[in-house]
Amino acid sequence: MDKGLNNSRKDFPILDQQVNGEPLVYLDNAATTQKPNQVLKTIVSYYQNDNANVHRGVHTLAERATDHYEAARDKVAEFINAANRKSIVYTRSTTESLNWVASSFGNLVVNEGDEIVISQLEHHSNIVPWQQVAQKQHATLKYIDLTTDGELDMDSARRQITDKTKIVAIAQAANVMGVVNPIKELAQIAHQHGAYMIADGAQAAPHMKIDVQDLDVDFYAFSGHKMLAPTGIGVLYGKQDLLEMMPPVQFGGEMIDFVHHQDASWTELPWKFEAGTPNISGAIALGSAIDYLTKLGMDNIHAYEHELVAYTLPKLLAVDGVTVYGPHDPNKHTGVLAFNMAGLHPHDVATGLDMEGVAVRAGHHCAQPLMEYLNVTATARASFYFYNTQADADKFIQAVTAVKEFFADGIS
Amino acid sequence: MDKGLNNSRKDFPILDQQVNGEPLVYLDNAATTQKPNQVLKTIVSYYQNDNANVHRGVHTLAERATDHYEAARDKVAEFINAANRKSIVYTRSTTESLNWVASSFGNLVVNEGDEIVISQLEHHSNIVPWQQVAQKQHATLKYIDLTTDGELDMDSARRQITDKTKIVAIAQAANVMGVVNPIKELAQIAHQHGAYMIADGAQAAPHMKIDVQDLDVDFYAFSGHKMLAPTGIGVLYGKQDLLEMMPPVQFGGEMIDFVHHQDASWTELPWKFEAGTPNISGAIALGSAIDYLTKLGMDNIHAYEHELVAYTLPKLLAVDGVTVYGPHDPNKHTGVLAFNMAGLHPHDVATGLDMEGVAVRAGHHCAQPLMEYLNVTATARASFYFYNTQADADKFIQAVTAVKEFFADGIS
Repeated sequence: MDKGLNNSRKDFPILDQQVNGEPLVYLDNAATTQKPNQVLKTIVSYYQNDNANVHRGVHTLAERATDHYEAARDKVAEFINAANRKSIVYTRSTTESLNWVASSFGNLVVNEGDEIVISQLEHHSNIVPWQQVAQKQHATLKYIDLTTDGELDMDSARRQITDKTKIVAIAQAANVMGVVNPIKELAQIAHQHGAYMIADGAQAAPHMKIDVQDLDVDFYAFSGHKMLAPTGIGVLYGKQDLLEMMPPVQFGGEMIDFVHHQDASWTELPWKFEAGTPNISGAIALGSAIDYLTKLGMDNIHAYEHELVAYTLPKLLAVDGVTVYGPHDPNKHTGVLAFNMAGLHPHDVATGLDMEGVAVRAGHHCAQPLMEYLNVTATARASFYFYNTQADADKFIQAVTAVKEFFADGIS
Repeated sequence: MDKGLNNSRKDFPILDQQVNGEPLVYLDNAATTQKPNQVLKTIVSYYQNDNANVHRGVHTLAERATDHYEAARDKVAEFINAANRKSIVYTRSTTESLNWVASSFGNLVVNEGDEIVISQLEHHSNIVPWQQVAQKQHATLKYIDLTTDGELDMDSARRQITDKTKIVAIAQAANVMGVVNPIKELAQIAHQHGAYMIADGAQAAPHMKIDVQDLDVDFYAFSGHKMLAPTGIGVLYGKQDLLEMMPPVQFGGEMIDFVHHQDASWTELPWKFEAGTPNISGAIALGSAIDYLTKLGMDNIHAYEHELVAYTLPKLLAVDGVTVYGPHDPNKHTGVLAFNMAGLHPHDVATGLDMEGVAVRAGHHCAQPLMEYLNVTATARASFYFYNTQADADKFIQAVTAVKEFFADGIS
């Protein structure tokens, strides 16, 4: 584990730097991952050889750009085992994907008196769009509770999901507690009640093999930037018949069939949802990121991260005064570790760790309802990816101890 | 004019290639421009040194990323002379900017019986979003007519804009006819009637100095990818008080102040509109593109492109059987030349030119109502940028002649 999975660390030159005089240990991967040279080369090569606008041109560069852009869509479809490339819509981000499902599909199927079911561990991007639908449609937004371990309470799920439920929207992997939710089972329960199942895959798709057909989700959202691709590109997967019935969200070039002076008609999937010039280079770079991940193997990535967490979690729990949120059993954990240190504000923890070269996040992690549920205002959060090493984990634990001692000295 | 403005051509290695055995002459700049090495270096340097998610982190990389991202916003504000950085909202594209103004601001201020005024020369992205508002609010969508020269008929504008008008939305530079519309005068007329003025700057901001305060527009939209920046980043400028009253369009992380279980409140401008992880590297690269353009000088770019068009337009008009749409006076023209060749479909023209290495676009250019108005189904379109040379213009004219002769031979 000293060079990352399959010696991958060498592909990420950003990691080879000092921060505050210490070697950088980047443990903020749940916020965004670093990009390998292969992805950066794809971007540069695209702009130095093939760049043009897509779909609308008959000249050579436009054809090349369109081919690359659509080939990346095929890679995305294969990556999550979508039945059909028409099911793959490019967006800016998971947030945009979820907003589009909520504002377009949600407002289509949710009516007065209906219920939308989410959970106590959702990211704001899977909460606030549903609040908007509930308010607009006079529907009710309900929350599935958590077990004391921070897992989804499936008894609560079965109570909350009823025949009144139209939408169930749940993160596949939690961005704070690091648990993985049983999306396939939730989809079955939702479908038994005639509800639609939407999975927020932002923290799952980068870290494990995803099969949207096996999960039987109706929509699945994820972001490129959390899986080696640049910012500004995301994906909305939807079952084809649902995307067909879902009205477009943005209007303009590319997404139309005919525009008359007073009305217009829409083109076919997936372009119906891609108004205007899309993030062409972002999509192509996402294809390159998928190539990289596929070569490593998603199952290998998952196993490697599990190894890292199994190594780190007991050591973190052993530091006196540290509270770790979520399960303490590494088998129930992704590479995300949210924690607090007794008597210290998480921002001070993160600042202290940064002085040691260790980059972690501190705050509410866009999950204020969860913070309220946990009765904390914020936590620190360390999150791993496959290029992190055992040495990173050691340095992290060492730095946590150093921060504890520094503040203990300061207070005494 | 043999090396582009200020010898800029050397910064665009993509131009130094052969297409179909001929040196590439890229004349599809109205669709998207090429990117200089300086912009590509900014992207790579960002990802190799500073990449992190913005705003939410206290660690060193997150601070650097945030600083770069927000510094680029200051550059955008200065580039269009916005009074305040709060007025600069990052979007995906002009299309998204216009959609947000229409769906959020438009639906707020347009009521039943009100009127929205656009023109016969608009791009679909400045038509279809307004059709949607008109349909939803039971308002009327009206069109300003054109003169026989293809310019906006200002008498028609004065007739169409009345006290019933709530929104006037017009392209500053037309993407087909290549005319520049008197936005400042239109804004005065709109404001006299209590209407809001929205300018689509997609074809203007890359080519001339923009001063949103002098124009006194209420909203101004443009795209990065048409001005040297990557795809996936655009700008919506809005007067601060109007952006304050405009509800957010997307919901999630970054844009909230507090999220409770059943409701949420929004953070301040401009972040209120930037839900989720934005296109961080795109914004930073846009800043780099603006640096490049500013160094060349927007007035110099404008003058240079005018020189190119003044050189090319008479030569194109002199080719027997060629029809050029829009004014034949180069003084009334941007670097966009839409044309047809007698007896030839524009797609065949573009394919023929591509065989000569010349990249032009053919189609309706996302302006079907204009095509209907001109009574054509499509046109070819050549569009220049500052890195094009007199040799490019010569090769273009030579290729048009060659295409004409090829098809004449083929037919005879």
